[in-house]
Amino acid sequence: MTLASLEAIAGGVTTPLGFRASGVSAGIKARSGLDLALIVSDTPATASAVFTTNLAQAAPVLVSRDHLARSGGVARAIIVNSGCANACTGDAGMDVARGMASAAAAVLGCPAEQVLVSSTGVIGVNLSLEKIRSALPGAHAALSADNGPLAARAIMTTDPFPKEAAVRLTMAGRQVAIGGIAKGSGMIEPMMATMLAFVTTDAAVPKALLDRALREVVDDTFNAITVDGECSTNDCVMILANGASGVTITQEQYEAFVHGLKTVCLRLAIGIVRGGEGATKLITVQTTGARSSAEARKAAKAIANSPLVKTAIHGGDPNWGRLIAVAGRAGVAFELSRAAVQIGSIILFKDGRPYDDNAPEAAAYLKNDDVSVTVHLGAGDRSSTVWTCDLSAEYVKINGEYRT
Amino acid sequence: MTLASLEAIAGGVTTPLGFRASGVSAGIKARSGLDLALIVSDTPATASAVFTTNLAQAAPVLVSRDHLARSGGVARAIIVNSGCANACTGDAGMDVARGMASAAAAVLGCPAEQVLVSSTGVIGVNLSLEKIRSALPGAHAALSADNGPLAARAIMTTDPFPKEAAVRLTMAGRQVAIGGIAKGSGMIEPMMATMLAFVTTDAAVPKALLDRALREVVDDTFNAITVDGECSTNDCVMILANGASGVTITQEQYEAFVHGLKTVCLRLAIGIVRGGEGATKLITVQTTGARSSAEARKAAKAIANSPLVKTAIHGGDPNWGRLIAVAGRAGVAFELSRAAVQIGSIILFKDGRPYDDNAPEAAAYLKNDDVSVTVHLGAGDRSSTVWTCDLSAEYVKINGEYRT
Repeated sequence: MTLASLEAIAGGVTTPLGFRASGVSAGIKARSGLDLALIVSDTPATASAVFTTNLAQAAPVLVSRDHLARSGGVARAIIVNSGCANACTGDAGMDVARGMASAAAAVLGCPAEQVLVSSTGVIGVNLSLEKIRSALPGAHAALSADNGPLAARAIMTTDPFPKEAAVRLTMAGRQVAIGGIAKGSGMIEPMMATMLAFVTTDAAVPKALLDRALREVVDDTFNAITVDGECSTNDCVMILANGASGVTITQEQYEAFVHGLKTVCLRLAIGIVRGGEGATKLITVQTTGARSSAEARKAAKAIANSPLVKTAIHGGDPNWGRLIAVAGRAGVAFELSRAAVQIGSIILFKDGRPYDDNAPEAAAYLKNDDVSVTVHLGAGDRSSTVWTCDLSAEYVKINGEYRT
Repeated sequence: MTLASLEAIAGGVTTPLGFRASGVSAGIKARSGLDLALIVSDTPATASAVFTTNLAQAAPVLVSRDHLARSGGVARAIIVNSGCANACTGDAGMDVARGMASAAAAVLGCPAEQVLVSSTGVIGVNLSLEKIRSALPGAHAALSADNGPLAARAIMTTDPFPKEAAVRLTMAGRQVAIGGIAKGSGMIEPMMATMLAFVTTDAAVPKALLDRALREVVDDTFNAITVDGECSTNDCVMILANGASGVTITQEQYEAFVHGLKTVCLRLAIGIVRGGEGATKLITVQTTGARSSAEARKAAKAIANSPLVKTAIHGGDPNWGRLIAVAGRAGVAFELSRAAVQIGSIILFKDGRPYDDNAPEAAAYLKNDDVSVTVHLGAGDRSSTVWTCDLSAEYVKINGEYRT
C-alpha cells in the first residue's frame, strides 16, 4: 500500500485536471434559473455509475446504463437537467433522453454512447428536447475549468444550497485530485427528491477498480444517508476518471484512492442531509453490538427513518424509550437486558435499567445542530453509522402544499 | 357452513352475556382520570391473545404470555392500567406485572394464572403496585355489565376518543354477541403509542378455533393499520370466550364467527387510525396486481407509511408520482408499463402514461375526510387493503414536545 496524504480543498468537479463544466439556463424550470449542466473531460475517461434500485426507473437512468454498457465504461461527458425528471414518460421520454446524449455528443464531437444523461425534477411531465438542443451551444461555449460552481447550481431543484467537495491526494510525491457535486432533497416543489452526485478525478483508474471503489464508497456514504426513507426514480452517482494527472491507480494505491473518494462522497452526502426538507439538525445514528454488519445497518436505518425518533430529536427530547422500541422492532437480533442507549456521550439506558437522572444533560446536548445517538443492540460486535435529519413541521408544510 | 345474520350494535366488552367491567382511578396518570380497567368473565373463559413482535417486550406481555401457557388458555379476567407501560423496567417490572395479576386473582377468587395483564403509557418508568392494590377493591365493587364504557375510557392514554364496537350474530335462531374495546396512539404525552384491544364473546369457542380465528382476523384488521410504522413494546389483542350464550362455535359456525369477530376488530382498528396523532383523514390504501398476497400487503404498507404520500394527501395533492415511486422501491415485483394509480375512482396513471387532465377532479376528491388510493402493480392478480391516516404538522408538534 502506498502512503498517501489527503487534504480537503475548496472545489468541485472541475478541480481535477482536464475537466471543464458549465451551467446555463435552458428554460426548463418554471421559474427562471440555471437548469442545464455539462461536465466534460478533455479526453475519454473511465466511467462508472451506481443507479437507483427503484423499479420505476426514469428514462435517463435506462439510457445511461445502456451507454455505459455499449461504450465499455468510457465517457467524455455528463449532461444533466433539473426541473423535469423525465420519469414515467414512456417511449417519448426514452427518445428525449437519447436525444440529449446525441445532441451533446454532436457539439463535443464524440460518440453518443460516451455521453451519460441525468435528469431531476417533476415526475410524469414531458421534457422538451428542443429547449435542451437550443441551450447546448451556449453550454458548450461556457465550458470552463472555473465553472464547476455553476454546474453545481444548475443541477439543484430546490436545494437550499449547492453541494461541492474536493480533495487532493499526494502519493509518493505525485498529486491526484478528486472532486464532486451533488444535489439532494430540498423539496419546495413536491416530487423532487432525486439524489444526484457527479464525481471527477484526474487519476487514471482501470474500469474494474473504479467500479469496485465506487460501489464500496457509495455503500458507506450516499447509501448511509436518509432524509425520509424514500428512494427516487432518478437517483444516480457517476464518476469519471480521465488520467490527466499522469498518476495511475493500481492495487497498491487503491486504499488511498478509496479514502479520498470516500471523503468527497461523505461530504456531499452529509450536505444532502443538512439540506433535507425542513431539516434543522444533522443526526448521526450509530448502532453497536449487532450480530452482523447488515443487521447493524438495518437497525441504524430503522432508527434514522423513525418519525417518532426524528420528531423527538427535533423537539430536543432525550426520549430513549423510542430508540429502544425501534431497535426492538427493526427485525434484527436484539437483547434488551444487554442493550444500551447513549445520546451524545450521555448514557440513558444500560444493562436493562434507565439512567433518567442524565435526561436533563441529554436534553441540553440535543440543542446542538449536530447530534449523535448510539444504540447498543446487545447481540454481537458489529456496528454501523448512518446520517439523517430531524422531522419538522416545515417538512409537512413543504410536502403537503398543493401541486396542481 | 351455518347461515348467519350479522348486526352491528352499540356496545363493547360487556355486551356479550356473562361479562362485567369497570374503570376506576388508581392515581397512576400524572393528571387525574380513569387509569385502571378490569374486564371479568363470570365463569372461566377460553382465552387467546396476540402480542407485539417487538423484541423489547414489556413485563405485562411476558407475564400474560406465561399465564396463557400455564392456564392452558383459560382466563377469568384482564387487568389493564394506563399511564405507565411497565416496559424496560427489568426484574422489578416483572414483579409488578405478576403482582397485578395476583392481586386481581385474590379479589376475584381465581388462580393468578387465569388473570391476563396489560399496561400502556410511558416506557422506562416504574409502575406502583401499591397504587393498583389500593384501587382494586373499588374496581371490583364497580364491576357491572353497564360499565364497559368506563373500561374503554380507563385504557386510554391520550386517545382523542374511546373506541368500542359490538355485533350480534344470529345463527340458526340462536344469538351470540362479540364486543371489544381498543386504544390507539393519540400521543400528546410522547412514548405512548401502544395499541391495545380486548374482545369478549358469549359464544363457547374451543381453544384451537379461537386461536385460529384471532390470528386470522388480526392479520386483516389490527395488522393492516399503520399510523406511523412504529410497533410498541406493549401491543396486544386479547379475546375471552365464556360460552354464556349457550352457543358453541364448531367448524360449521367458524366462518360466521370469524365474520363477526372481523367486523368488531375492523371497527376498533379503524377507530385507532381515525384517532391517530394529528390525523385529519382516514386513508384506505389498496394494492392490486401483485405477484402474491404478501407482496400486495408489503407494497400497501410501504405506501401507507410513506411520509411523502401522507403529506401529499394531507395537503390534498393528487401526487400520483409519489405513489408510483414508493411502489417501485417497496421490494416487490412491479412493472411500470402495466402499472396504474387511482385516487378514489379517478385514474391518474395507466399503462405507462399520465392522465393529468384528471388531476383537478382528484384534488377535489381529496378534500373528503375518508379517501382511498389504489396502486396496480402490474405483476400479478393478488391484492391487499391497509388503513392509515395523513401526516400533519400537528403530528410533529405532538411528538416533538419536550418530555422531561
